[in-house]
Amino acid sequence: MNYTDFDKTAACRTLRNLAALYKTYDFTGRLNAARVEQYRTPMAAGLVYSWAAKTVDDEALTALQSLADEQELIPKYRALLDGEVMNTGENRKVLHHLLRGELGKPVIHEGKNIGDFYRQERERFSAFAAEVHSGKLRGSTGKPFRAAAQIGIGGSDLGPRALYLALENWAAAEGKQKLRAAFISNVDPDDAAQVTASLPLEETLFILVSKSGTTQETLANELFVKDKLAGAGLDPGKHMIAVTSETSPLARNPAYLDSFYIDDFIGGRYSSSSAVGGCVLSLAFGPDVFRDFLSGAAEADRLALEPEIRKNAALLDALIGVWERNFLGYPYTAVLPYSQALSRFPAHLQQLDMESNGKRVNRNGGPLAYSTGPVVFGEPGTNGQHSFYQLLHQGTDIVPLQFMGFAQSQRKDDVLVEGSGSQLKLNANLAAQIVAFAKGQADGNRNKDFPGFRPSSLICGQRLTPKALGALLAHFENKVMFQGFVWNLNSFDQEGVQLGKILTKKVLAREAGDPALEAYAKLLGVY
Amino acid sequence: MNYTDFDKTAACRTLRNLAALYKTYDFTGRLNAARVEQYRTPMAAGLVYSWAAKTVDDEALTALQSLADEQELIPKYRALLDGEVMNTGENRKVLHHLLRGELGKPVIHEGKNIGDFYRQERERFSAFAAEVHSGKLRGSTGKPFRAAAQIGIGGSDLGPRALYLALENWAAAEGKQKLRAAFISNVDPDDAAQVTASLPLEETLFILVSKSGTTQETLANELFVKDKLAGAGLDPGKHMIAVTSETSPLARNPAYLDSFYIDDFIGGRYSSSSAVGGCVLSLAFGPDVFRDFLSGAAEADRLALEPEIRKNAALLDALIGVWERNFLGYPYTAVLPYSQALSRFPAHLQQLDMESNGKRVNRNGGPLAYSTGPVVFGEPGTNGQHSFYQLLHQGTDIVPLQFMGFAQSQRKDDVLVEGSGSQLKLNANLAAQIVAFAKGQADGNRNKDFPGFRPSSLICGQRLTPKALGALLAHFENKVMFQGFVWNLNSFDQEGVQLGKILTKKVLAREAGDPALEAYAKLLGVY
Repeated sequence: MNYTDFDKTAACRTLRNLAALYKTYDFTGRLNAARVEQYRTPMAAGLVYSWAAKTVDDEALTALQSLADEQELIPKYRALLDGEVMNTGENRKVLHHLLRGELGKPVIHEGKNIGDFYRQERERFSAFAAEVHSGKLRGSTGKPFRAAAQIGIGGSDLGPRALYLALENWAAAEGKQKLRAAFISNVDPDDAAQVTASLPLEETLFILVSKSGTTQETLANELFVKDKLAGAGLDPGKHMIAVTSETSPLARNPAYLDSFYIDDFIGGRYSSSSAVGGCVLSLAFGPDVFRDFLSGAAEADRLALEPEIRKNAALLDALIGVWERNFLGYPYTAVLPYSQALSRFPAHLQQLDMESNGKRVNRNGGPLAYSTGPVVFGEPGTNGQHSFYQLLHQGTDIVPLQFMGFAQSQRKDDVLVEGSGSQLKLNANLAAQIVAFAKGQADGNRNKDFPGFRPSSLICGQRLTPKALGALLAHFENKVMFQGFVWNLNSFDQEGVQLGKILTKKVLAREAGDPALEAYAKLLGVY
Repeated sequence: MNYTDFDKTAACRTLRNLAALYKTYDFTGRLNAARVEQYRTPMAAGLVYSWAAKTVDDEALTALQSLADEQELIPKYRALLDGEVMNTGENRKVLHHLLRGELGKPVIHEGKNIGDFYRQERERFSAFAAEVHSGKLRGSTGKPFRAAAQIGIGGSDLGPRALYLALENWAAAEGKQKLRAAFISNVDPDDAAQVTASLPLEETLFILVSKSGTTQETLANELFVKDKLAGAGLDPGKHMIAVTSETSPLARNPAYLDSFYIDDFIGGRYSSSSAVGGCVLSLAFGPDVFRDFLSGAAEADRLALEPEIRKNAALLDALIGVWERNFLGYPYTAVLPYSQALSRFPAHLQQLDMESNGKRVNRNGGPLAYSTGPVVFGEPGTNGQHSFYQLLHQGTDIVPLQFMGFAQSQRKDDVLVEGSGSQLKLNANLAAQIVAFAKGQADGNRNKDFPGFRPSSLICGQRLTPKALGALLAHFENKVMFQGFVWNLNSFDQEGVQLGKILTKKVLAREAGDPALEAYAKLLGVY
């Protein structure tokens, strides 16, 4: 395989020359019905990726296709699926796709079939959830479990939490809500205190999630919760399961009711498809719902094998992102779901993207002379319209936009006002924003003038179901992976989190070793 | 008063010449205990603004002081307090400071003393809340109110919601929680459906908030809620109050139990100190808590009158932001509270900052040739450490950071693990991050190398109380105001939200007038 820094490719030079022509781009003449019809790519689970309002056309797309081919994005994806070591920094395979389907060769590691292992664990936690739902498994006082509370941080929190919130209304409408779920993440004790105070402890099953079994925040919150359980006269061992790796101190530990395993080939931010997301989602909505979610993701993974960028939404989304980041010079992307259910999905994508591609060295540790991952932020529409959209429309910089929307609501509980339902209003707003951002509107009063030329894409579908959600999640995972391949970096490690951990330990041991660090610790009441 | 575009000032030229010296800045040699001790400014309510880890020193500060003086920031603030028309685009005064204190001349508008008006409304909604708390006012079936649910969007939602969440744990610990509060904002019907399903409707008081009385989302949600109330056999008129302007269709309307008023001089994103925030916070925690909140804000407003930038935290914060935005070239700022209670405070600041200063024309509508407001985003720590901090530490770009932290937790419910409580761990992490970002750490393995030179500031205090929260809110309002004065723009209008509204109405009337807009509407199931 050819691993070349992005700026050494022939396609990069071509694109750099081309970019000058796209520094302005008049959508008023270009964005017509035919373009909206043509510039779209089918995704998994019936979703559609529409890129008509992006600053691309045949010439740019041809050059981006060359970049995809030259950087061998699809062969690299295949190598990853086949179990090659793609996490070079940590010398690990990258196998989150294998959690939802087998698209490559069987992956054998130290004699173990990893696909089988993942399947077994899924079966185990599905069976466990079924026993909770049937009432066979109960809390220490014999009451059935009514709530599941996940204790985890980062990848063990943001993804599962975003997915749970994304399906809560759908489950309510479909009669699929089995347990309500809650999440404890922050080491701030007010987080655990508030969540535990809101839970019926006697009927709550806690899910302790830490791959290493050594995460400071999670272990502190585990003890916090155990204190509360014991204080309520409950047996903590009957109210907690663990999700961890087989080599962690939490594994096969009688302190937990049961334990479910992942391994080093599942990165935290990619772990929603494993027991990390699977336990809480199966407990909350049932194993069949989680299976549907995985099937949507598996379909997205399969479609991502297509080499033609116009037919591969994840690949095209990735390349347009590179075009915007490296050639048009936009340092950020806003993620704007027109769906209250996706309220925390931007926070998950923020982690997925910024932790994966916020890197300054290539996959071999060599320095990079070009920009990599952008800042990602976002809030649901229409809320954002009444907040930060002012800057997006009329600020001095251009922020590329990634919209999402669904024809139907999840609950299908709506109200008719002035001849239209709220869901219709929601989507009318979304359509209006895309065109307003792209085309703008001239006004003699410059304060009321909209320059336009604010590029956006749209992912849309019929309804946000478990399957559509799986497709959506995998789309972004694959997008980020392809961008990492383009930039020739390792999207799967996160050395940037280490230094803070080391200094924190020094502070807590009262061995800061740096008077400035001591001074800050004093200012914050640590000393 | 002198209203000059920023790039025409002498100070701007000085700063531009100076900036080249700060493109790198070695904190390892500079950031010592003495600097942490000296580079801090007292704020209201006992808070401290620490800027030792920002890329400034005497020379830069002297030049920034000149900029503050040349742009007459304090005289402009005084003019605003005195009731001069500072919202030029809409020809309005800007009087949110008057909601919490009288620092300028009495403001008389069309014969009316505006300060008196604001005070009267505060007294009215305080008395109303007291009647709810005493049980004198009850729902339509005679049950006392146990919940308050705000219906509003943008400024009528983000600020009040962020403040409510910020005080919920404090109130629980102090026995001050009187009603629980909920919020409905999005026009997505799943939002209203979910929130109403979670409320005891019989015991819920809804607060309808729209200054104009014409906000599409809010009116749709009002009818949604009224349908639910009527469906539950309740009298909607006995379960809803309105917060609006006296000229709106909602004013003096018998459809509401009572109405409380603001006026055109209170912008949405600045309205948390008015009845917009005051009703829900007084109902939830009591009028005395809201009064403490206002007193913290009033103290911050008073301190913001100080002309010396080293003694005025809001002014200094504003100028350092301009230094970073216009001279060092950073297009974003991350807001990172180490406090779970401030989980939605970054979303409020995102609105406050981006809607106020995301402008491309000056206060008279003339085009601006320089960058204005940055993109603002953030999540609470330590959560963010396990998410997007990777990019902040090791990405290819520098993102300025704004930290916040408090010595004590709100609930004071903590657990000791390995010799330290969670609150201590939280703050040890915060101190560690500041130093890790500033100083970095060299490593032979470039993948483990931290470049440092990631500037940050810190606002810290003893505990997040209502008064501290008021001080914090006003600090940022004043910071944003000062930056608007520096950039010679109008921070108080938001014409950028208009075009989307117009196009939405066209779509809903099936008169899109643009085939591309129609095509998007079809794609989203509107047609």
